[in-house]
Amino acid sequence: MTTKLSITAALLVIGDEILSGRTKDVNIGATADFCTDLGIELKEVRVVSDETDDIVAALNAVRERYTYVFTTGGIGPTHDDITADAVARAFSVALPINAEARAMLETRWQNTGTEVNEARLRMARIPEGADLIVNAVSAAPGFRIGNVHVMAGVPIIMRSMLEAIAPTLQTGRKVMSETIKAAVGEGTVGGPLGALQAQYPDVKMGSYPQMGANKVMTELVLRSSDEARLREAAAKVREMVAREHAKAGITPPE
Amino acid sequence: MTTKLSITAALLVIGDEILSGRTKDVNIGATADFCTDLGIELKEVRVVSDETDDIVAALNAVRERYTYVFTTGGIGPTHDDITADAVARAFSVALPINAEARAMLETRWQNTGTEVNEARLRMARIPEGADLIVNAVSAAPGFRIGNVHVMAGVPIIMRSMLEAIAPTLQTGRKVMSETIKAAVGEGTVGGPLGALQAQYPDVKMGSYPQMGANKVMTELVLRSSDEARLREAAAKVREMVAREHAKAGITPPE
Repeated sequence: MTTKLSITAALLVIGDEILSGRTKDVNIGATADFCTDLGIELKEVRVVSDETDDIVAALNAVRERYTYVFTTGGIGPTHDDITADAVARAFSVALPINAEARAMLETRWQNTGTEVNEARLRMARIPEGADLIVNAVSAAPGFRIGNVHVMAGVPIIMRSMLEAIAPTLQTGRKVMSETIKAAVGEGTVGGPLGALQAQYPDVKMGSYPQMGANKVMTELVLRSSDEARLREAAAKVREMVAREHAKAGITPPE
Repeated sequence: MTTKLSITAALLVIGDEILSGRTKDVNIGATADFCTDLGIELKEVRVVSDETDDIVAALNAVRERYTYVFTTGGIGPTHDDITADAVARAFSVALPINAEARAMLETRWQNTGTEVNEARLRMARIPEGADLIVNAVSAAPGFRIGNVHVMAGVPIIMRSMLEAIAPTLQTGRKVMSETIKAAVGEGTVGGPLGALQAQYPDVKMGSYPQMGANKVMTELVLRSSDEARLREAAAKVREMVAREHAKAGITPPE
């Protein structure tokens, strides 16, 4: 048994465009994959609108509760980019122009012949005490303050920022999984699977019907950070599925 | 001016498979589009794990606050399908086998030669006082209790349930939008757009950089339920964009 503590996270997706349906979010899935790969348990996601009060309330609700908070969206140069303001308010700190951020942006602007103006300088406003998260794509940095990591909403930038912060994060016990396919419905395996779940409380068992497949098909996914227990539980689930296949006169799918 | 009240909603996406990254959610985008089409403002989305306490807490946090709550996921036949239990607990009501739900399921099971068992009958457990939401795809119904609409997580079923409840929902003032393309960066239009936003507080102006496009491109999206004000503001934004194009010596993109 390892004694490493569990590392948890929440994601805050900030933006009216997600809530209106205009933009279809892909950052939730990317963050979920990122966390799973690092052994960080993503426990909650919230999508909130571009309203300072809503962002502050959501931030304060999750930052006390989890090891890490990630946010995406709202760090561009326009009036609706208010994430930095909301984070500064949540932490009760000032939001000055950050010299390092300004230098990063001005270097990029010089290279591209881009005019420096007040709107663009909004992107150099960083809450006092925060560290910058570099943005290899468009230079405008994200930042980390306390356990909150503020990143861009544009997926390609967001993923590059996740890569940038990965080495700075505590990683948890890696959760391993086994997937077992059953050629019978969820309702057939539901009873015996529930009984096995009760025997293996440390192995989380999920059941996912495969709709639209040619035949009835259910994927059973077992997850645990204890490999021996996972293997043992998976063997029991495989036996159970084989019994149900035999009862139904089905040749196993693979 | 119309005096129709604004109709709001929250969506609760329930399921470990979304938080682990195993399943990439598409119900958020579908619900956002659905709400926008009906003039319902989707104000918040939360993704929570398959833990009864977490579901109850999230439900109670949002159901007081918005006109409607929609949930997806966790209404199947296996032990990890606990949404009905959580909703019953949030509303402090019992969770008996519902005769109408049982009849719907048994009719389907007779037609498909499916055995009735305890796991399958879990899907007929409906909180006392709830109305059923029919499921044309796989028969297992969702339900509505108070302002909470409990739907399946499988996208095709979820969308059919949204269609089923649409006629029962109050619709709000339809929000119209205009999209204006600028061939300059967000940082260029940011200042003048902010000034126009201040002049038109009733027209919500968003700015979205188009990354990966061949040239720099920014989409400005104006949204309002007041058509005249929307048209007026859009004309002003178009003039502003034309000025910025002229300054930059750019021929407008379309």
